[in-house]
Amino acid sequence: MMKNLEEKTIATTQIFSGRIVSLQVDKVELPDGKTSTREIVKHPGAVAIIAITPENKIVLVEQYRKPMERTLVEIPAGKLEKGEDPLITAVRELEEETGYECEKMEYLTGFYTSPGFADELIHVYLATGLNKKENAASLDEDEFVEILEVTREEMEQLMKEQKIYDAKTVYALQYLQLEAAAQSK
Amino acid sequence: MMKNLEEKTIATTQIFSGRIVSLQVDKVELPDGKTSTREIVKHPGAVAIIAITPENKIVLVEQYRKPMERTLVEIPAGKLEKGEDPLITAVRELEEETGYECEKMEYLTGFYTSPGFADELIHVYLATGLNKKENAASLDEDEFVEILEVTREEMEQLMKEQKIYDAKTVYALQYLQLEAAAQSK
Repeated sequence: MMKNLEEKTIATTQIFSGRIVSLQVDKVELPDGKTSTREIVKHPGAVAIIAITPENKIVLVEQYRKPMERTLVEIPAGKLEKGEDPLITAVRELEEETGYECEKMEYLTGFYTSPGFADELIHVYLATGLNKKENAASLDEDEFVEILEVTREEMEQLMKEQKIYDAKTVYALQYLQLEAAAQSK
Repeated sequence: MMKNLEEKTIATTQIFSGRIVSLQVDKVELPDGKTSTREIVKHPGAVAIIAITPENKIVLVEQYRKPMERTLVEIPAGKLEKGEDPLITAVRELEEETGYECEKMEYLTGFYTSPGFADELIHVYLATGLNKKENAASLDEDEFVEILEVTREEMEQLMKEQKIYDAKTVYALQYLQLEAAAQSK
C-alpha cells in the first residue's frame, strides 16, 4: 500500500445491541486530516455449506427473508456462536437445517459480505458423504425452512428466476460451474 | 413454495436513520403463530463494476474499510442515489473511483449481500472499451482509494493473500475464471 488510507477512530457511539447485530457510529479522522462518520454493523460472522448428496444433488433451503419480504432459495447457512470454530458451526447448521450429517466438511473460502457498512465474514464449506441422520438436531424455534435437492442445471434455472439471489449461493453456483469446467477439460 | 413460510409484521420500531443505513426491529408472527423479532438494516443498494482495460487488465481499488479496520482490494463500487437507474450509478462510480469512462456497460447479475439482516442488493456490471477521461469527476470528499490494474492471475494471488476478501470481488474473479474456461474449450 503506497498511500496512507487509514481512518483513525476519534469517537464511537453505540446505537443498538440486538440478538443478531449491533450498530455503532464512529467519528473518524480521514487521511487528509478532515473528519467524517462511519456507520458500522457488527455481526458475529457466519458459515455456509455447499452440500452434495450421493445422488450428486445440491441441498438448498428456502426461507422467508424479512428484509426483502420474500423467500429466497439459499445454500444452508448459520451464524457463528461466540468463540465457536466455524467448522463446528458448519456441521451443526447442516444437520439442523437439512437433517444431513457428512463424512467430509472441507473449507473452501471466506469473504466479507458488505464491507462498506458491516463486518460480517462468511466461511464457505463443501460437505460430501452426506447421510440423513436419525433424530437430527432441529432448527431454532424461529426458523422455518423448506428443503430442496436440485441438479446444477436446476440451480442455474433458480438463479435465472431470481429465486436464488444472494451472494453466498451465487458463489456456490459459480464454484460448481468452475468444478464442472475443470472436469470437462 | 409448498409450506407457508411468511412472517407477518406485527410492529416496526425504528432504531436509527443514518447517512448510509437505517436500522429497524420488526416484531413478526411466525408461520406457527408464535412471535419473534427481526433486526433489519435498510440500505439503498449498490453497483459494482468489473472493468477491463484495453490491455486486458482488471481495474481494482484499495480502500480502508472501517468495519474491519483494514484495507481491502475490491472492484469499483458505489451506492445508488435515491431513484437512480443502477446503470447511471455504475458509469458515475467507475469515473469517480478510477477516472475511466467506458464505451460499454453491460449488466451481468445482481444479488443480496446479507439477506439474513440487510436488504442491500448489489448490481454487477461489466465495463469495456475503457478510456481515461480528462477532468474526470472526483471522489466524494470522504473517499480515499488507491487504484490497481492487475491480470487475472494477479487477482487470484490477491485473493490467496486475503487482500481480496469480499463477496462482489470474489464474484468478479469467478466470473473471469468462468469466461477463461469457456474460451479455452
